[in-house]
Amino acid sequence: MLNGQGQRHFVKFVWTPELGVHSLVWDEALKLGGQDPDFHRKDLYEAIEAGSYPKWKFGIQVIPEGREHEFDFDILDSTKIWPEDLVPTQYIGEFVLNRNVDEFFTETEQVAFCTSHVVPGVGFSDDPLLQGRNFSYFDTQITRLGINWEELPINRPVCPVMNFNRDGAMKHRIHKGKVNYWPNRFSAAPPATVSEGGYPDYMQKVTGIKARLNGPKFKEHFNQARLFYNSLSPIEQIHVQRAFAFELDHCDEPIVYERMCQRLYDINPALAATVSEMVGGPLEPPESPKPQAAPTKPTLLKAKALSQLEFPAANPTIVTRKVAVLLADGFDATAVKHLKTAITAAGAIPMIIAPRRNNIIPTGGSSAGGITADHHLEGARSTMFDAILIPPGPQSIATLRSHGRAIHWIREAFGHLKAIGALGSDAVRFLGEALGGDVIGKLQIGTTDGKVVSSYGIVTKSVYSGDEEQEWWQKWKIARDEVSFVSAFFYEISLHRNWQRDLDGLPNLVAF
Amino acid sequence: MLNGQGQRHFVKFVWTPELGVHSLVWDEALKLGGQDPDFHRKDLYEAIEAGSYPKWKFGIQVIPEGREHEFDFDILDSTKIWPEDLVPTQYIGEFVLNRNVDEFFTETEQVAFCTSHVVPGVGFSDDPLLQGRNFSYFDTQITRLGINWEELPINRPVCPVMNFNRDGAMKHRIHKGKVNYWPNRFSAAPPATVSEGGYPDYMQKVTGIKARLNGPKFKEHFNQARLFYNSLSPIEQIHVQRAFAFELDHCDEPIVYERMCQRLYDINPALAATVSEMVGGPLEPPESPKPQAAPTKPTLLKAKALSQLEFPAANPTIVTRKVAVLLADGFDATAVKHLKTAITAAGAIPMIIAPRRNNIIPTGGSSAGGITADHHLEGARSTMFDAILIPPGPQSIATLRSHGRAIHWIREAFGHLKAIGALGSDAVRFLGEALGGDVIGKLQIGTTDGKVVSSYGIVTKSVYSGDEEQEWWQKWKIARDEVSFVSAFFYEISLHRNWQRDLDGLPNLVAF
Amino acid sequence: MLNGQGQRHFVKFVWTPELGVHSLVWDEALKLGGQDPDFHRKDLYEAIEAGSYPKWKFGIQVIPEGREHEFDFDILDSTKIWPEDLVPTQYIGEFVLNRNVDEFFTETEQVAFCTSHVVPGVGFSDDPLLQGRNFSYFDTQITRLGINWEELPINRPVCPVMNFNRDGAMKHRIHKGKVNYWPNRFSAAPPATVSEGGYPDYMQKVTGIKARLNGPKFKEHFNQARLFYNSLSPIEQIHVQRAFAFELDHCDEPIVYERMCQRLYDINPALAATVSEMVGGPLEPPESPKPQAAPTKPTLLKAKALSQLEFPAANPTIVTRKVAVLLADGFDATAVKHLKTAITAAGAIPMIIAPRRNNIIPTGGSSAGGITADHHLEGARSTMFDAILIPPGPQSIATLRSHGRAIHWIREAFGHLKAIGALGSDAVRFLGEALGGDVIGKLQIGTTDGKVVSSYGIVTKSVYSGDEEQEWWQKWKIARDEVSFVSAFFYEISLHRNWQRDLDGLPNLVAF
Amino acid sequence: MLNGQGQRHFVKFVWTPELGVHSLVWDEALKLGGQDPDFHRKDLYEAIEAGSYPKWKFGIQVIPEGREHEFDFDILDSTKIWPEDLVPTQYIGEFVLNRNVDEFFTETEQVAFCTSHVVPGVGFSDDPLLQGRNFSYFDTQITRLGINWEELPINRPVCPVMNFNRDGAMKHRIHKGKVNYWPNRFSAAPPATVSEGGYPDYMQKVTGIKARLNGPKFKEHFNQARLFYNSLSPIEQIHVQRAFAFELDHCDEPIVYERMCQRLYDINPALAATVSEMVGGPLEPPESPKPQAAPTKPTLLKAKALSQLEFPAANPTIVTRKVAVLLADGFDATAVKHLKTAITAAGAIPMIIAPRRNNIIPTGGSSAGGITADHHLEGARSTMFDAILIPPGPQSIATLRSHGRAIHWIREAFGHLKAIGALGSDAVRFLGEALGGDVIGKLQIGTTDGKVVSSYGIVTKSVYSGDEEQEWWQKWKIARDEVSFVSAFFYEISLHRNWQRDLDGLPNLVAF
Repeated sequence: MLNGQGQRHFVKFVWTPELGVHSLVWDEALKLGGQDPDFHRKDLYEAIEAGSYPKWKFGIQVIPEGREHEFDFDILDSTKIWPEDLVPTQYIGEFVLNRNVDEFFTETEQVAFCTSHVVPGVGFSDDPLLQGRNFSYFDTQITRLGINWEELPINRPVCPVMNFNRDGAMKHRIHKGKVNYWPNRFSAAPPATVSEGGYPDYMQKVTGIKARLNGPKFKEHFNQARLFYNSLSPIEQIHVQRAFAFELDHCDEPIVYERMCQRLYDINPALAATVSEMVGGPLEPPESPKPQAAPTKPTLLKAKALSQLEFPAANPTIVTRKVAVLLADGFDATAVKHLKTAITAAGAIPMIIAPRRNNIIPTGGSSAGGITADHHLEGARSTMFDAILIPPGPQSIATLRSHGRAIHWIREAFGHLKAIGALGSDAVRFLGEALGGDVIGKLQIGTTDGKVVSSYGIVTKSVYSGDEEQEWWQKWKIARDEVSFVSAFFYEISLHRNWQRDLDGLPNLVAF
Repeated sequence: MLNGQGQRHFVKFVWTPELGVHSLVWDEALKLGGQDPDFHRKDLYEAIEAGSYPKWKFGIQVIPEGREHEFDFDILDSTKIWPEDLVPTQYIGEFVLNRNVDEFFTETEQVAFCTSHVVPGVGFSDDPLLQGRNFSYFDTQITRLGINWEELPINRPVCPVMNFNRDGAMKHRIHKGKVNYWPNRFSAAPPATVSEGGYPDYMQKVTGIKARLNGPKFKEHFNQARLFYNSLSPIEQIHVQRAFAFELDHCDEPIVYERMCQRLYDINPALAATVSEMVGGPLEPPESPKPQAAPTKPTLLKAKALSQLEFPAANPTIVTRKVAVLLADGFDATAVKHLKTAITAAGAIPMIIAPRRNNIIPTGGSSAGGITADHHLEGARSTMFDAILIPPGPQSIATLRSHGRAIHWIREAFGHLKAIGALGSDAVRFLGEALGGDVIGKLQIGTTDGKVVSSYGIVTKSVYSGDEEQEWWQKWKIARDEVSFVSAFFYEISLHRNWQRDLDGLPNLVAF
Repeated sequence: MLNGQGQRHFVKFVWTPELGVHSLVWDEALKLGGQDPDFHRKDLYEAIEAGSYPKWKFGIQVIPEGREHEFDFDILDSTKIWPEDLVPTQYIGEFVLNRNVDEFFTETEQVAFCTSHVVPGVGFSDDPLLQGRNFSYFDTQITRLGINWEELPINRPVCPVMNFNRDGAMKHRIHKGKVNYWPNRFSAAPPATVSEGGYPDYMQKVTGIKARLNGPKFKEHFNQARLFYNSLSPIEQIHVQRAFAFELDHCDEPIVYERMCQRLYDINPALAATVSEMVGGPLEPPESPKPQAAPTKPTLLKAKALSQLEFPAANPTIVTRKVAVLLADGFDATAVKHLKTAITAAGAIPMIIAPRRNNIIPTGGSSAGGITADHHLEGARSTMFDAILIPPGPQSIATLRSHGRAIHWIREAFGHLKAIGALGSDAVRFLGEALGGDVIGKLQIGTTDGKVVSSYGIVTKSVYSGDEEQEWWQKWKIARDEVSFVSAFFYEISLHRNWQRDLDGLPNLVAF
Repeated sequence: MLNGQGQRHFVKFVWTPELGVHSLVWDEALKLGGQDPDFHRKDLYEAIEAGSYPKWKFGIQVIPEGREHEFDFDILDSTKIWPEDLVPTQYIGEFVLNRNVDEFFTETEQVAFCTSHVVPGVGFSDDPLLQGRNFSYFDTQITRLGINWEELPINRPVCPVMNFNRDGAMKHRIHKGKVNYWPNRFSAAPPATVSEGGYPDYMQKVTGIKARLNGPKFKEHFNQARLFYNSLSPIEQIHVQRAFAFELDHCDEPIVYERMCQRLYDINPALAATVSEMVGGPLEPPESPKPQAAPTKPTLLKAKALSQLEFPAANPTIVTRKVAVLLADGFDATAVKHLKTAITAAGAIPMIIAPRRNNIIPTGGSSAGGITADHHLEGARSTMFDAILIPPGPQSIATLRSHGRAIHWIREAFGHLKAIGALGSDAVRFLGEALGGDVIGKLQIGTTDGKVVSSYGIVTKSVYSGDEEQEWWQKWKIARDEVSFVSAFFYEISLHRNWQRDLDGLPNLVAF
């Protein structure tokens, strides 16, 4: 980027989501891939339709041209990050997705991005990936869409443009007049000068040898891999180990998984040994080739802003979260009504899951007072929800207990580290049976004294009476150490996953 | 076509040009092909730009469905004409080209016609060429332009359209809403019924054998060829003979030109013998295969409206005609001024042709009084003009006489049967020398008594004096037997070609 | 098809797989979609690579042209079947896939099928779907691949071909000589006549009205839907109910799922009521529009060859089946070796699943005697296997018991109706714990007397001693009522699924 | 290019035709464009078919890298030549076209050249045109033909190639095996090193400023234009003047033709004044902007090898030349037979042109002894021939004289500066009449003493007797000052055009 004085800076763009950084756990991703391959797309679409516009802070990392060589990595190697400890992010704007397209094909399938299209003030560094893209993106759009892709409604500039390509397949714009080049005999339409807002080319000094080579910093592959692994939280390091173990498990050729494990020894011996044991790799660093030492002592051993856990939402929130409310005929109508009210008021979406969709009748209710479930137990899965809530109702709980699939909803959500709430003695007991004795022995659940207990993301209250309303569904607050059921449950949802549950090995005790 | 009562008629469209039917002679076409391959396109473009809009009368020939089989030819064989003697043309409208495109590529290259696009009231006959085109035109447009060719500005309907193709490469239109088919759950946008103006399908009775065959009338190839040749004027028959002789002259394989000549014997023995002599074919009808007799006696031996000569302009006119005015330094300024005025007033275009373009000085004139020629003698050719005019001016004529190319302008225009005018004794004498004694012996040219002489399209007047102005350039009239020079010259131009000159063999006496 | 006498017959092709008809259960399909979207493709590829060539019997159903209108459905409506009770299948050949492609893109992505390419003796019926395809397939291949798609190695004829398209993008074949049409001046390369093997066109009589309509039999939509549902086995009818319940559960617009349920009432009231309850549709047949009665009494109420269960393999076999052998350190080496031998000898594939891949050590074994597992417990899932086998080894079983994921392997396979075998008292006890008391109460498992017990596809034998070898892994036989463990287990695998388990509601008792 | 020592040289390729450099004259080109747009293509095709293979000497101009800046022009500006006086051409090979394609589309339309495809030893200079082409040629071939254009028979390498693109539309080659990149796990197929014949990259030193600019030598536009014009022969300078005059004659906007004339004043005032007069430009160098002076005194004012006239064939030859032999009934059969024999023996092609093709009868001959003409007088034109020969035969000559077109053949060939031969008193007299008195007065033609006279390319001999045979058609020799008719005529043909005829203004005296 050029500033107003024409000074050049290397710049990276940084987008930080307002609601924090979240992701699927691996088993969930594997399942959603089959259950709903459009899961993420649908999530984005529905949030925008509902007015919960996804928002990102927009930041830049800036290195003045003169400081280009001060780092122990090549800043133009796009496989390298610029650690924020060295190059802080400055937030300068925001990015909001506030409208869905009217028609998918025309406005989404035909979108064409092009790295070579820039505005005055933005130029091209020598990043080889960028240079390659400058050619290939344009070529790609021509191949995908045709030479007049820039005329498509979704791609065309919103301001008037003075210089056009003419002709080519599927040309829509009709040019009048004879002048389409400069200079021309009418001296018409000269290109804008820099002072008029025209594009400034940077007169770059070049000196060196032109050859098909990468510099030594480009070839240093391990420092940043070590920096990245070191900078992760413990649970993320475990996930990295499992990810390698999963993927290499599918590889049958020893030369491939052994080489991969050797590369891991180059980065971190503990990581490498763990993965090797799972996939059949060498349990010790190989004698030959020996793990590669860093050629020079790296500036940083650990950096901030690389772990997801450093990006929570600014304030705890459950906005856009989906809560599955498990029930059957004989549920407690008042409790369910109030729980739904609270969830909705918090910006989250309660969805009723029952053995069937058709007219579920509450305790003492009649057919006319029933509710239609959003899904039956087979029609959706826990993977599609952020939390599970089991409301009171003895008959309702008894019915759920007879459905293996209902039990699996609870186990699976537990395995995926999600918040689970149970209200009333039947619901709490059912929850305990569903998770099994090994698990229950390790966590605390609501006892008969009516206290709300929150343990490993499981929020329970054994005693339920109707007159507690005020406390629960109108005065909730999303914060740590809140004592009401709703507040405590919402706080656990706001954390999205209970990582400690995974760190302490609880999911392994549950079949899911 | 269906009429208001739903009765079906077979219909042919007929377009008759307002200014009459004209064409190039063969030598002219050969030369223009090299000198200006865009000649006809430019002619059309310039006429429209100048406001002389090309106009056609639009007629139809109509055969009610019940009379389909009353003819001795298959009316659905598109290689056959419907003789106007049997099926008269009814003129019902006109067709005017009144605007040039703003941009050639977008609006001309991308035009896509499609026989399968019809309005209510028009349907498809069993004409096999039409049926094939219904498929191939649509396919062709997809291949040429892409599936969304109907959205291009030049192709898209000017009225709103209810039913769309969706998606496909280079889609510009963005559809809102969910309904794009019928029936739909909203019962929205049903197709228009016939009574609402929807397209009426004709419920056609079909009976017969489905096979890959053509009927016997389809296989009768000679009746209409004979009818066509018989219906031509004598000069057109000569041109047909020459055209065959020219084309077959380029064929070196005896089997090919001999077979072609045999086919001509099937049509007309005199035509065949003439062509055969020129190209090396059989001088007598072959014994085997013998010329084919018509299987049945044809209804017509000769038909009207097949000869160009039957389509003169309604009133003699020289509108849009180009007249080359040949001159050099020393031309008679007054005469040229007045001749140009008259030509322009008649709607034709005078263009000065001189040894150079730069400032041509009239008799007794100065450099300041000169005129710029439109072209020098080498820059244009007589082929690009409809007539040649040689104005008075002794020195001008003397200079022209020294240019072989000026002489060739006159010879070539003579050979191409065009009107030539010469005014004043020098001009008339120069004209005579240019054409040569053999020609001059056969036509009359202006003598010393000052009479205007018009002979074989050559209009001459030997005596020129300035005080004849009123008669000439203000009172002209385009009609046969007018006595003034301008009127007589214009009348010859209005005939376009002097066919008698060709019939009497005069061009053959001139080297051009 | 035309026979040797030129008589025309309507023909349907029928392909019957040699190993019987099998399919995934729904939960399995949902999961495999995410875990391995290439599951079926890989299955086919690996079977071919392993020499277990997939084979189909090829049959035809034949209706002579004269009998076309004898059926209560339109035989040219491709949404209708031809019941085998009315038109028996005659098997006339077989179809074997005996080679994988060398390169995927060139030989699979570029394959182009074309309904309009037929050999002499095959013609085109008036089936509107076929007629449409004859145009669209050719067009599609041109759009996908280009006009010269027939020249690609995978598409081009293996015999010499006399007539070619010429030119067009990416033309590879170079034609020599001048003749490319008929007739030609050399009378070369005439088209083959029918007697020389040329294509015979059928001269079809046509009579009627040409209109955009379907006949009444085309519009009768329910008879065959009823016939189909009636002809299914009880478990397949349940699966149809569940499939509707699953899909309509995802539909939020009442007008859509209610209409769909109304259509089901048109077909079968019990089916409709069951689905309606699950998805929120009408529990009674609607008053308006009333369910549609069949316009005429249908010929058949039930037909054979519509249920998968009518297509078992000719002889029970476990060829190509995959058996997951669950074990951990401390497994019984001898038992595992012999079980693997037996499985392999039967043409099936044993795969070791353990907590890790790296060197699993048997009871009393050393590191050197260990085996590498094929996958660890997270690396694969039960969905990818046809059966589960738990071999003896107390320490091995104790380790598996501590892994929730191991327990889930067993539950999920049980839920998916697969065969499960357990050998030795520890293994049988572990199996019981994994499935839970509710299930175990409903089935029989091996007791201490050493008998092999087979119950709902679960094959158990509590007593294991090494000297039983001869009986087990060398003398097995795949047949009902065999008494040895291996024979009984193999027989259950050969059945693929234990449908009775599903009919009796056992999967519902297991959380999976 | 790199030599064996890795030293880099700038190299230009030079192709010099064996038969000398020839070209059309302008009027001929204009006419052939219409008469036979394929004229040159056909000429090449027929020469190759006839075994007269077109051959070029292949030379290189070499500038060692160190001398790059020694010239007063930028050697990388592809609009500049490298004068042979400064950089001599070294001939190192030859280039022969010895086969026509079997099929035009496949092997000519689909040919794809690509500047970025080079062999080891050839690299890319910084020539901006070359650099642009390296991208655009590849892109163009993809757009024209598709990504697999390199697989087309006409484009694919004749040697085995190790590295392929995979996939992409219309892929024909089927790759076996898994390795398609380097490095790979099998360490298979490493790229060839330079010592093994692999491509050597040149490690070029680069230093400077990267900007969108051209250097000052790139911007010097006139020195080489002056050098070029100065180096032409007088007749070529005249042709340049006429070419400008012709083209600018078609331009109607004064600003355009005046600016063009100003540019000519920058180059050569005489050229500019001549053109200006013809097209209406300024007759004097403009005051403003003044003609541009060369910024520095140029090294050369004139250079060799820029005039066509410096490239005659090594030895005079008439190989591949076409001679039109004009005759009619009553020609002298013996003379014609012997003249044809001589022409054919010299490697040229005699073609008989007569009033018709059919059976032309010689003097005293019968119908049986006639010959078939190759073309009639209208079927071909003099433009398609290199020379004209009028053989004896009083009746033949008399007939030709009555055809204006025959006279025009002679005039036109004279105007196009071609050799014309006339033998016998009738023929010589006819030739004189055809050219007209003005011309005849300026050249010498054969008189009654029987001498062969050669004047301005017109070779005549008035006295013809049969016993001179030996001298004529068996002992001819193509050389200056030969005295026999055939030898003198052939020599004039070998010169192709008689430039002196044009220099002395003779064509202007003939109308053609």
